[in-house]
Amino acid sequence: MNYISVQNIDSLSEWVKQALKIKKKPLKNKKLGKNKTLGMLFFNPSLRTRLSTQKAALNLGMNVMVMNFTNEGWTLEFEDGAIMDQGASEHIKEAAEVVSQYCDIIAVRAFAGLVDKDKDNAETVLAGFLKFATVPVVNMEGCTGHPLQALADAITMQEHKTEHRPKVVLSWAPHPKALPQAVANSFVSMMQLQDADFVITHPEGYELNPEITKNSVIEYDQNKAFENADFIYTKNWSNYTDYGKITNSDPNWTVTAEKMTLTNNAKFMHCLPVRRNVVVADEVLDSENSIVIEQANNRTYAAQLVLQKILENGH
Amino acid sequence: MNYISVQNIDSLSEWVKQALKIKKKPLKNKKLGKNKTLGMLFFNPSLRTRLSTQKAALNLGMNVMVMNFTNEGWTLEFEDGAIMDQGASEHIKEAAEVVSQYCDIIAVRAFAGLVDKDKDNAETVLAGFLKFATVPVVNMEGCTGHPLQALADAITMQEHKTEHRPKVVLSWAPHPKALPQAVANSFVSMMQLQDADFVITHPEGYELNPEITKNSVIEYDQNKAFENADFIYTKNWSNYTDYGKITNSDPNWTVTAEKMTLTNNAKFMHCLPVRRNVVVADEVLDSENSIVIEQANNRTYAAQLVLQKILENGH
Amino acid sequence: MNYISVQNIDSLSEWVKQALKIKKKPLKNKKLGKNKTLGMLFFNPSLRTRLSTQKAALNLGMNVMVMNFTNEGWTLEFEDGAIMDQGASEHIKEAAEVVSQYCDIIAVRAFAGLVDKDKDNAETVLAGFLKFATVPVVNMEGCTGHPLQALADAITMQEHKTEHRPKVVLSWAPHPKALPQAVANSFVSMMQLQDADFVITHPEGYELNPEITKNSVIEYDQNKAFENADFIYTKNWSNYTDYGKITNSDPNWTVTAEKMTLTNNAKFMHCLPVRRNVVVADEVLDSENSIVIEQANNRTYAAQLVLQKILENGH
Repeated sequence: MNYISVQNIDSLSEWVKQALKIKKKPLKNKKLGKNKTLGMLFFNPSLRTRLSTQKAALNLGMNVMVMNFTNEGWTLEFEDGAIMDQGASEHIKEAAEVVSQYCDIIAVRAFAGLVDKDKDNAETVLAGFLKFATVPVVNMEGCTGHPLQALADAITMQEHKTEHRPKVVLSWAPHPKALPQAVANSFVSMMQLQDADFVITHPEGYELNPEITKNSVIEYDQNKAFENADFIYTKNWSNYTDYGKITNSDPNWTVTAEKMTLTNNAKFMHCLPVRRNVVVADEVLDSENSIVIEQANNRTYAAQLVLQKILENGH
Repeated sequence: MNYISVQNIDSLSEWVKQALKIKKKPLKNKKLGKNKTLGMLFFNPSLRTRLSTQKAALNLGMNVMVMNFTNEGWTLEFEDGAIMDQGASEHIKEAAEVVSQYCDIIAVRAFAGLVDKDKDNAETVLAGFLKFATVPVVNMEGCTGHPLQALADAITMQEHKTEHRPKVVLSWAPHPKALPQAVANSFVSMMQLQDADFVITHPEGYELNPEITKNSVIEYDQNKAFENADFIYTKNWSNYTDYGKITNSDPNWTVTAEKMTLTNNAKFMHCLPVRRNVVVADEVLDSENSIVIEQANNRTYAAQLVLQKILENGH
Repeated sequence: MNYISVQNIDSLSEWVKQALKIKKKPLKNKKLGKNKTLGMLFFNPSLRTRLSTQKAALNLGMNVMVMNFTNEGWTLEFEDGAIMDQGASEHIKEAAEVVSQYCDIIAVRAFAGLVDKDKDNAETVLAGFLKFATVPVVNMEGCTGHPLQALADAITMQEHKTEHRPKVVLSWAPHPKALPQAVANSFVSMMQLQDADFVITHPEGYELNPEITKNSVIEYDQNKAFENADFIYTKNWSNYTDYGKITNSDPNWTVTAEKMTLTNNAKFMHCLPVRRNVVVADEVLDSENSIVIEQANNRTYAAQLVLQKILENGH
């Protein structure tokens, strides 16, 4: 069993229930991971993912080996049949097969380069590990998805659920740097597994990959989208059509207290790290309705559920 | 309970006694830290602090998650109300609150920048974690203090105590790079908690922060200061008045065997790393009177005492 | 007991036997390393060595503290009597003595600089730790040798041994970057402890250090060397005479399927990472005769045997 995308979740409601059970007694399965080793391979920076996934493994009694691939290891080649006379020292085939012998589970983080859309969509690094690793692989954020985040998001929404069918809004917000679409993509895919009034709002031209958004409702008027919302999930992403570019930095898209008044006293969510007063105003982030810290906390239980399922599968 | 400065020590003699007890049986409290996690966050290089604090946690049975914040995580913003459209990706508020959820204790190392005195005195990073973390915070060397070092220093002096009230000299020495005042500051504060004939010696103009030195005796004549000393603690610091500058590199301040003859067969101390034959001559560092290696060893027990106190407090 | 070179192996056949026993029950000695700490100090990148040595320590129940010395610690001075007014912050004497107090075993990786042959042959870093450390030291690849690799190689060959006295060929291959001779050296030294028809093949002028190759047979004709070989061990190294230079990049030395037909259905070995289609063709590396992945797997058991011997010695 791998955990590469939200599609790997067979029953979201069941998973969320199980994760909340883990959250209540995080050390209950401390023996499950005994003598098992999680290898965490980072091709990009990480705070929450790094520490929460590690913590999840420790809660399960696992050993953890953390490696920053970029500066601690060798540059990898991913192309089949490549004549490796350039910068790359090692082919993913050997790297993945070798690491599989030292680890029972491999977790990988490798962001989008945001230069070559096809290459990013191919998830070169993650797909390479998936192809050649002989042990389960966990996605700690790839080019196009961040399914551990989406699972944590689902857990968090369950904890704050409304009595009625909730209205959930994914709202784009401006950002000074070009960011990947990964978090937004996985959130969309996760929402498609839920019964909710789900609306995506962003400036025209900022459409996410249509193969991911599918039939999800898109509303270009942010104010209209916010109306009666129960959850506002904010996240910047760079342009997907004009790939990796920042074509809009309109500060009117920043989530403010005023905009939140349009909602049904909505909870505010964000995956973090968040640019204060650019993506969202202090007044919102510091309000009682902000659940971003609990959302980050749930990263541990999302990761722990995934690791637990893999460990149980392996027995 | 936090351990941010020497002022957090309620009874130095009691703490030193307890640390020496730990040193005798370092694994006695191996169960105390079970299922507890220490997060060690580094904003600067570290050898002794990194390994001894980790070792201390392991001796207590804790899990340890080590993170080099500078290259593994996100650039932090510390200003309240900042519009984060520049380099920083995450505000200390979120970072500290989030890490608090994965760790039972957070230890932080963040050196002085030596450019802006007010900013350094404000201990931006450490104060940020202290303000927003919801778990105890340990100072692994901040801009203005290094209290784990000072505690190890006190332990080491106790092991080598004289029968009479000791004369302890903190002596400045030259150094090719501009260094923080942190170690010297904490040593001074720690000595102010002891009954000793304590003298600080440095070139005129190299006064430490007077709010820290208070009434401590300053003697500009190094030779005179060394007379009958029982402990010579050497350390370079950059100019505090002409902030962060090197205004003196007089090699006559280097501690030599000849100078040591002025003392009462004094023990030689230094926090390490030390520049040989610049700060102190080989002949002194390699002499029987040098206790720098034991001093480094005691870093483990200083850290272990602090972690133990925090863990006991938490129960 | 240290493990610095292949010469530290008292009986290769006995060690290989013991390692294969460990491989069968890797967790059998899980209590041996309890409360013991391995410090792994890296001055260079590492994948296999990093993870396999760590895994070996975990299998023995040890704690592991990993440190990338180059960017996490202080620049070291190695010269005796140096006036340290330049770049280096700490002398190896203090560093090694201090780390010895936090760790029960110190493992060090420090590659050849390939600029100054005498300095590389002196193994400055490793020799420094060996001289000043007060606990056992393990070589995780130095300038001139990689004995953990050679031990893993011996284990792997034993697993694939022929009924007759095997013919083993160490074949140079081209490479776009100047590489150290360490792996080749240790392989040669290890082969000299075995009963085999051992042949080294490389272009004229690419002789390894004659003090290492001694009486080992050198055959400049690669095809002739390959004839009837049972094991082809391929590895690039830069010129030892014209020190650290690439004076040959003849693609005819690449190991191809055609060349392998000259052998006695030989197993193909390489320490990895390997440059595909430069050092060896895909067709060989991906063939059934390639045992490079198992060779990497055996790194764990080589390291575990060494750590186990040191731990047993220490009791």
